[in-house]
Amino acid sequence: MKNYLKHHEWRIIEEGFDPHYNKISESVFSIGNGRMGQRANFEEEYSGETLRGSYVAGVYYPDKTRVGWWKNGYPEYFAKVLNAPNWIGIHISIDNQKLDLAKCKTEDFRRVLDMKTGLLSRSFAATFPDGKKVRVDSRRFCSMAHGEIGAIRYAITALNFSAKAVISVYVDADVVNKDSNYDEKFWEEVYKEASEGKAIVTAQTKKTLFHVTTGMRYAIETDGKKAQPERINLEQREKFAGNVIQLNLEEGKENVIYKYAAILSSENHAKASLVANCSKVLDEAYNKGFEKLFEEHSNVWAHKWEACDITIEGDIAAQQGIRFNIFQLTQTYTGEDERLNIGPKGFTGEKYGGSTYWDTEAYCLPFYMATAEQKVARNLLVYRYKHLQKAIENGQKLGFTGGAALYPMVTMNGEECHNEWEITFEEIHRNGAIAYAIFDYIRYTGDEKYLTEYGLEVLIAISRFWAQRVNWSSHKNKYVMLGVTGPNEYENNVNNNWYTNTFATWTLEYTQHALSFVKKDDESRFSEILKRTSFDEKTEVAKWKDIIEKMYYPEDTTRGLFLQQDGFLDKELMSVSELKKEDRPLNQKWSWDRILRSCFIKQADVLQGLYFFEDKYSPETLRKNFDFYEPMTVHESSLSPCVHAILASRLGYKQKAYEMYLRTARLDLDDYNNDTEDGCHTTSMAGTWMSLVKGFGGMRVKDGKLCFSPFIPEQWKSYSFRLEFRGRVVKIKVSKDGTETRLESGDPMEIWLKDEKVMLK
Amino acid sequence: MKNYLKHHEWRIIEEGFDPHYNKISESVFSIGNGRMGQRANFEEEYSGETLRGSYVAGVYYPDKTRVGWWKNGYPEYFAKVLNAPNWIGIHISIDNQKLDLAKCKTEDFRRVLDMKTGLLSRSFAATFPDGKKVRVDSRRFCSMAHGEIGAIRYAITALNFSAKAVISVYVDADVVNKDSNYDEKFWEEVYKEASEGKAIVTAQTKKTLFHVTTGMRYAIETDGKKAQPERINLEQREKFAGNVIQLNLEEGKENVIYKYAAILSSENHAKASLVANCSKVLDEAYNKGFEKLFEEHSNVWAHKWEACDITIEGDIAAQQGIRFNIFQLTQTYTGEDERLNIGPKGFTGEKYGGSTYWDTEAYCLPFYMATAEQKVARNLLVYRYKHLQKAIENGQKLGFTGGAALYPMVTMNGEECHNEWEITFEEIHRNGAIAYAIFDYIRYTGDEKYLTEYGLEVLIAISRFWAQRVNWSSHKNKYVMLGVTGPNEYENNVNNNWYTNTFATWTLEYTQHALSFVKKDDESRFSEILKRTSFDEKTEVAKWKDIIEKMYYPEDTTRGLFLQQDGFLDKELMSVSELKKEDRPLNQKWSWDRILRSCFIKQADVLQGLYFFEDKYSPETLRKNFDFYEPMTVHESSLSPCVHAILASRLGYKQKAYEMYLRTARLDLDDYNNDTEDGCHTTSMAGTWMSLVKGFGGMRVKDGKLCFSPFIPEQWKSYSFRLEFRGRVVKIKVSKDGTETRLESGDPMEIWLKDEKVMLK
Repeated sequence: MKNYLKHHEWRIIEEGFDPHYNKISESVFSIGNGRMGQRANFEEEYSGETLRGSYVAGVYYPDKTRVGWWKNGYPEYFAKVLNAPNWIGIHISIDNQKLDLAKCKTEDFRRVLDMKTGLLSRSFAATFPDGKKVRVDSRRFCSMAHGEIGAIRYAITALNFSAKAVISVYVDADVVNKDSNYDEKFWEEVYKEASEGKAIVTAQTKKTLFHVTTGMRYAIETDGKKAQPERINLEQREKFAGNVIQLNLEEGKENVIYKYAAILSSENHAKASLVANCSKVLDEAYNKGFEKLFEEHSNVWAHKWEACDITIEGDIAAQQGIRFNIFQLTQTYTGEDERLNIGPKGFTGEKYGGSTYWDTEAYCLPFYMATAEQKVARNLLVYRYKHLQKAIENGQKLGFTGGAALYPMVTMNGEECHNEWEITFEEIHRNGAIAYAIFDYIRYTGDEKYLTEYGLEVLIAISRFWAQRVNWSSHKNKYVMLGVTGPNEYENNVNNNWYTNTFATWTLEYTQHALSFVKKDDESRFSEILKRTSFDEKTEVAKWKDIIEKMYYPEDTTRGLFLQQDGFLDKELMSVSELKKEDRPLNQKWSWDRILRSCFIKQADVLQGLYFFEDKYSPETLRKNFDFYEPMTVHESSLSPCVHAILASRLGYKQKAYEMYLRTARLDLDDYNNDTEDGCHTTSMAGTWMSLVKGFGGMRVKDGKLCFSPFIPEQWKSYSFRLEFRGRVVKIKVSKDGTETRLESGDPMEIWLKDEKVMLK
Repeated sequence: MKNYLKHHEWRIIEEGFDPHYNKISESVFSIGNGRMGQRANFEEEYSGETLRGSYVAGVYYPDKTRVGWWKNGYPEYFAKVLNAPNWIGIHISIDNQKLDLAKCKTEDFRRVLDMKTGLLSRSFAATFPDGKKVRVDSRRFCSMAHGEIGAIRYAITALNFSAKAVISVYVDADVVNKDSNYDEKFWEEVYKEASEGKAIVTAQTKKTLFHVTTGMRYAIETDGKKAQPERINLEQREKFAGNVIQLNLEEGKENVIYKYAAILSSENHAKASLVANCSKVLDEAYNKGFEKLFEEHSNVWAHKWEACDITIEGDIAAQQGIRFNIFQLTQTYTGEDERLNIGPKGFTGEKYGGSTYWDTEAYCLPFYMATAEQKVARNLLVYRYKHLQKAIENGQKLGFTGGAALYPMVTMNGEECHNEWEITFEEIHRNGAIAYAIFDYIRYTGDEKYLTEYGLEVLIAISRFWAQRVNWSSHKNKYVMLGVTGPNEYENNVNNNWYTNTFATWTLEYTQHALSFVKKDDESRFSEILKRTSFDEKTEVAKWKDIIEKMYYPEDTTRGLFLQQDGFLDKELMSVSELKKEDRPLNQKWSWDRILRSCFIKQADVLQGLYFFEDKYSPETLRKNFDFYEPMTVHESSLSPCVHAILASRLGYKQKAYEMYLRTARLDLDDYNNDTEDGCHTTSMAGTWMSLVKGFGGMRVKDGKLCFSPFIPEQWKSYSFRLEFRGRVVKIKVSKDGTETRLESGDPMEIWLKDEKVMLK
């Protein structure tokens, strides 16, 4: 846990430069626009600890799998988020001394991320070994208005000298992935050009053959007037193109380099047009100039904030925390491209590889449903529809037949990327989350037609998987599901994980509903789906009904508990409070077997199921299970506390709910888990949003209506949030005095506030 | 399954050269002497498929662990059997054409391993591209009389020409391990010399800094007379030293190169004396000459065979099979050095790394007890005693305290080498086998004093482990053991594996016996042990008694079954006969989760326990469990069928016993599992021996007496075996007419034959 960032309602602020925190700040101050992202690396050279990272959405590399012991069915390749060509570089040297904050004396260092406008600024004074001192002020953003444009305003002022500066402005595709399994470089040069004021490099990824064209133009001003460098040399080498400029720095005069970058990928352009299109985008950016581009960019942000902002009065740290989460989520995924998804680290790091986990469906979807137009959430669902064939193939690899789909645990293109048997092959509950997301989306939006268009096919394939994955236990006279890993990954290869069994039968139920709906909604489409999927409605549905009827769920009926899995009660049941401090976090201190046989829970499992299917269970059941499992939960997954916060809120455990909320809200800002340097926990940020809106705000959708049962944490004066809901924007403000609801746009509608109907006009 | 080797009572014979079989033959025709071993690679160059392998006992390399996903507690290093410097090389070229069987036309190829004398011979005629034809006849052995000497007689005759041959005779430490994780070479040069007729290279392993000095001298004869080469050039390069000889080959005259190699390691010599000692050994070998060395070598073999031979009349394939197994075991481990052990592939390959698995205690010990002097088996036990401190440290790594030991799954020096959590951390039954070996050794030899000297300390440490590894289940009101992998590795992380639970309480019982014995036997030693181990006899033993009393064992009392683990009956219970052919072997065809949730058993588990503790259970119990588990067992471990053969014999299932015996007896000769090219299944060869002696022969030791209840497979006329037992040699011959027993040496003693007492004189 660190505490070096200043609290501010709209800004993240770092004052003073501590190299030990640099990689953390590089993550936290990352900027992006859904199409690309950039860690907060310095423009100038930096020889200290840094994780350079530029990322282009959808561009990945299937690195050869590294494994200790191969298991049949493992993927050969592991799709990795690719570190993309560097577009920010502006290297400066004066009298053969490099501007490098690891080597110069640095004063007045300040790094600021303005979340309101998506602007990263940095300023400092640096003294070279020979005593020359400069002041630098840099600003940059990834345009939310033009997804392929990045812009930098880099100002340098000689404070106590006049001298010639050598400035290299470039683009560079000779970059590496830190997590490359065999220290391989993934990019190859396709094309490069450098001319005065401009450079372009096209690089292609090995194997996947994505092309990315990265170009730049720049303009230089001295004291606000266009400046003419003394000399410009073109610089080209392998995968690199740029200009080397000689510029006279006169003491006290500000020299500004405006660098405009265009990053285009073959995902969006014909390979043959990439260079030409890049030039066009560059010209557009150059002609508009920094200020105009920034205006367009910040207008988009203003519009976005209108829809998704949450205010908290009386607690600046909490206010900053929630905005930071919303900011990251919004700049990670804009929902405009159905081929994209939300990587666990967004555009802030390369760790974990792959772009899509069950995080998307289980944690992120509600945020995007409620804060963006409907198509954003819909595109997240369509993404999985497009991967259906691959999911069926993945099922086949594991011995399933007849169109049964197992969606991958981690994926970039629909293929499985992960290779731990206990996860890859056994953490199959992900299939349930993907089915649930369809239900959840329809419940929120009312867009039931989605079933006809896409949903039903996915549901049939997932149901087929469940129907094959269970087996009949003649011992129990029930269907059982053996050898799974539930959401609590501190248990592996267990039998009858309650969560997974529950999801299996729920899917079988819901798919029957979907069949009826589509049959009524569009008979010819229905027949087409049946034909295409070779669906034998009578036999398959009969089997599903039998499974639903005779499924086994582990329970302790005396205590009114659902058991996480068979045998859970054989464990030594302890409370987290009994653990010694030096044993935490367990995953860094205990060997895996010890973790597995302990009762300690990494993340909500039975409780996660109760959260999803809250309506099926009595408050008494929720309470008993919460009281039983909560004390054993170590929350060593960032995805855990939000679920506990929501259930605690539901149960009126306000203090617990607030405590759980705090654990996620500033997870990255305070580097709670000592791992923010690898990137931010982007997907869990959606959980923070849920803790507030579904937890404190008690937001639910029932029978097509929004419901709230809010409370306010003692520590706060008020909080408010907005929701997009079926064409309306609703604003809820909760304070000590009560709850205000307001319809900000759209037709009047009825909502439930606690147990009262309220008409919003 | 291949069938290219000729059947012969004493010889393994390959006729005709098929490059596809070369790596298999390299394994099968391997020779060794307990100190070193050598695959049957060619002396001359070979550019085809080959796995070059020379191995020096005790010399290993801790390669950096490769792992997909790191778990806390994994070893950083994986000790590997090292491919050691090449001492066999004799390269030949004539008119710039290399003698290389991948490039020459080969006729009359014949490779023969004479098991009686431990001699590998190879002969062939080869035609060079230009039509020149030579005949080669090579013989070599690793001296059983002088563990550091290898000798080669390499004869070459020009058949249709006279010409100059260039012959390179060398030693070469520039070798690689095929399984090097990062393609690293593990040897560095320390010293080299080359002079006329001689060369020496000392190389050291990285990290472990073992020194191995490999030297050679040679002599050349033409038509039986010492020949003078035309010219000799010394050849030295990195890690390589040798002579390049120009020799006139005259048509029809046989030229013989006698190459004598000495392989010395710093395990047995001061590093500073290695080169000098190597020279001495070389001189000794050179002066004795090939014939004399061979005579000494084959005398040792004759002596060994006297003790351990098994004859089978009426089935040459079976006779060859059993002798091959005995031959490999005998040349792998001679028991003279308590630092050594039996690697799963002996000296025939580098796969699996490490030298010691539970195979040693569970499968190999009985063979060495019965066929070699007592110290051989004793040294196998002392090996573990010497690793006790490391086993305690290994326990500490996994959270155990107070002197609890967990012996490693795989080791070379006492440290764990393996890194799969489900094996490394959970396959803890190995600890039980190590305790059982002490009991088994004492039962066979009567050497109860071993407890006082070494055994008790090991037993205390293992018992402490079990006492901590169980936990109290308030649900079951019993002690349980959660999260283990039993001998059947097709189940991972199960609860209450019957085998492991049974071994735990057995160890706790036996340790109490050991405590009483030592207390009586040597009180001061007893106090010393108590002090050294800080053993709190009262409290610890009380805890053990409580565990013994209240341990939980999964059972199906209705059917009279011990259950392999909790939940076994929830599986879909099927018979192996219901599997499709294309599903076999499961581990190559099914994904791991499918294997895990199936009922199919890789290797004996409950049955392995019943084999070890046969006396505790009624024949009815054995039968019920055998009848239940046997049909589900796929025997995809080479260690499985022997246990089934022994139990089937016991139960009178003669046909099943014979079928199981056949599965192992010719496993490598017929390359049953398509993997002999990686090396032979050395440890499972001891299982074959057990199938015959304990299975067909029904050999047991009860109350200090040998017991037999033999039967003869229908297909055989007779079989016989010898046993060393408490200073006697007993010979048993079983034929259709009955059983003959004979005391070949030692004092008279009583044995049981079926249910009759017989006095052997």
